[in-house]
Amino acid sequence: MSELFFTPGPTALYFTAEEHIKTALKKGVCSTSHRGQQFKDIYKECQQNLRKLMDIPEDYHVLITSSANEAWERIIENCVEKESYHISMGAFSARFAKTATQLGRTVHELVVEDGTVPDFDAIDVPESAELITICLNESACGTTFPLDTINALREKHPDKLIAVDGVSGVPVIPIDFRNIDTLYFSVQKAFGLPAGLGIWIVNNRCLEKAEKMASSGKVIGSYHRLPDMVEKAQVYQTAETPNILGIYTLAKVASDMLEKGILPIRREIDYKSAILNQVIEAHPQLHHFVENDKHRSKTVKVIKTDFDSSLLIDHLKQKKIHIGTGYGGYKKEQVRIANFPTHSKEQTEMLVDLIEAFRV
Amino acid sequence: MSELFFTPGPTALYFTAEEHIKTALKKGVCSTSHRGQQFKDIYKECQQNLRKLMDIPEDYHVLITSSANEAWERIIENCVEKESYHISMGAFSARFAKTATQLGRTVHELVVEDGTVPDFDAIDVPESAELITICLNESACGTTFPLDTINALREKHPDKLIAVDGVSGVPVIPIDFRNIDTLYFSVQKAFGLPAGLGIWIVNNRCLEKAEKMASSGKVIGSYHRLPDMVEKAQVYQTAETPNILGIYTLAKVASDMLEKGILPIRREIDYKSAILNQVIEAHPQLHHFVENDKHRSKTVKVIKTDFDSSLLIDHLKQKKIHIGTGYGGYKKEQVRIANFPTHSKEQTEMLVDLIEAFRV
Repeated sequence: MSELFFTPGPTALYFTAEEHIKTALKKGVCSTSHRGQQFKDIYKECQQNLRKLMDIPEDYHVLITSSANEAWERIIENCVEKESYHISMGAFSARFAKTATQLGRTVHELVVEDGTVPDFDAIDVPESAELITICLNESACGTTFPLDTINALREKHPDKLIAVDGVSGVPVIPIDFRNIDTLYFSVQKAFGLPAGLGIWIVNNRCLEKAEKMASSGKVIGSYHRLPDMVEKAQVYQTAETPNILGIYTLAKVASDMLEKGILPIRREIDYKSAILNQVIEAHPQLHHFVENDKHRSKTVKVIKTDFDSSLLIDHLKQKKIHIGTGYGGYKKEQVRIANFPTHSKEQTEMLVDLIEAFRV
Repeated sequence: MSELFFTPGPTALYFTAEEHIKTALKKGVCSTSHRGQQFKDIYKECQQNLRKLMDIPEDYHVLITSSANEAWERIIENCVEKESYHISMGAFSARFAKTATQLGRTVHELVVEDGTVPDFDAIDVPESAELITICLNESACGTTFPLDTINALREKHPDKLIAVDGVSGVPVIPIDFRNIDTLYFSVQKAFGLPAGLGIWIVNNRCLEKAEKMASSGKVIGSYHRLPDMVEKAQVYQTAETPNILGIYTLAKVASDMLEKGILPIRREIDYKSAILNQVIEAHPQLHHFVENDKHRSKTVKVIKTDFDSSLLIDHLKQKKIHIGTGYGGYKKEQVRIANFPTHSKEQTEMLVDLIEAFRV
């Protein structure tokens, strides 16, 4: 048996990814010019497959970044002149607020207790804030942000831009793009691809904001200024020589997911989530970190252990199965388990059996 | 025969790169955590091999970016408070000046005629400029910047920072890091790797400049602020989940180059450059674009054609050999041929024979 990675990212490659990479090498994809037709076709296929898979409206632009970290920076640079509002539910969502602070913006931050999500009434966005940031799935704590709260925020604040961190959430969580303005993700989590590529989806409201800021003399970046990125993406080009191999592999994996069907993928996620929940609840020494089951992520399970969590991690490692440690200060008292499209039912059942039989 | 890429970037993969990528897939490198020891070992190996190969002093930091484009932005953000001076010899070097303009700096730009490099006396850097930017090898025009001019600039302006674009020049051109402050390159040219990774080498003078700017309240970026990048690189970490596969492959290719030896690699480049020059000079319908032979790049040959250059390009394409078009406005009247470490003597001799026999 080869090694199994249930770590929350980087994680197991999507089960077809390796073959696509080998085919790309054989076809000389890495040697093709990023200004030529072959690359344009690859980027176009990637855009089109993601649009279908994630139901991205035609008037939203699908852009290439190097990471979700870059998307944080570009969104602040291009969509926030002065003030932004951030909902922080853990280490990853809090980084967006930090980015805005580092870029000299006035930051309003709602920080909720780890393992919880805020009530709609607690989200008090000041009139002056231009942007609201939301993390769909906080990979550090295993919380998932309610989609109806996003929709309610849109209704309450129609004039503000809403940015959503989709890392470890998409394409599993069915987000309605019409209720948000921008969403970004890196590919090494739920898409199961090698790290080093991010996708940034933006609508024309974001673009108009960037253009307005630029025309008033504000610096909005250089090679990745949003208006320039959109202009290039419309002809399937990028400013820099991008991660062509990554874009190719994403196009192909998205195609494989489409062939399988997003509904079957989501049903499998539900099944695997249920059996993972069952083993946590049945085990005398394991507990959900997220108490409210409505706010528990389906794709990243965060589990409190009554023992030093490295005991379980090492036990599984001996069987060549890798799960994640707790994040940051929770390292020794929690484990994190990914439930992504690449993890098969059989693999997850095997993992569940091993956890069930484990005692300290 | 498989396809041969003499395009100036992306180009042929280094002849060992494909095997290293396959080994990485087999070893689960793409699934390993970027916070774990396995990744730290990969980044450390990459740093150490580049230091040996390029003779990078120990007190220079080897950082990870996504591209050379990103390096332009980071250098301006972190090393230029107000004014910079740029030597532009073609489309690529001119982009550095454009980046500084977009980021709101006051830009002094010396633009020389395409196919030429400036005399030392023409380089008139104002007292107010904090940074001088130089392109070692202008891939658009095939010019190479004289190393003794870099050294003379260092002597004349010891207080200014000097930034060098090493793309398509390193590791072939033996740059003396003691006479410059920062150098960056992307890996898809002379290193022959898949695009989507840049290396940014900086000394402590750059770091001190960034720290000084930050402490005076200037914005120097977010996740890739230079002081944070250096701090993380010292423990072989990055802020974002980086292109782990790319870093692994670069470490291995640099190791292969070390095993072959940088001197034999440079001797081969000299030999291939000489036979390419010979065929250009002997052919009645081909001419060097760069007239002064001292300023002609060894690694990117730019050739004027007396005919529509697509005729030669298409002729070679029928034999599954790819060479580059002219850049930008020169597309139809020039060809560009790469002479990188991955191009073998035999492959280059075959290319030379085909060009020699070609007539319109």
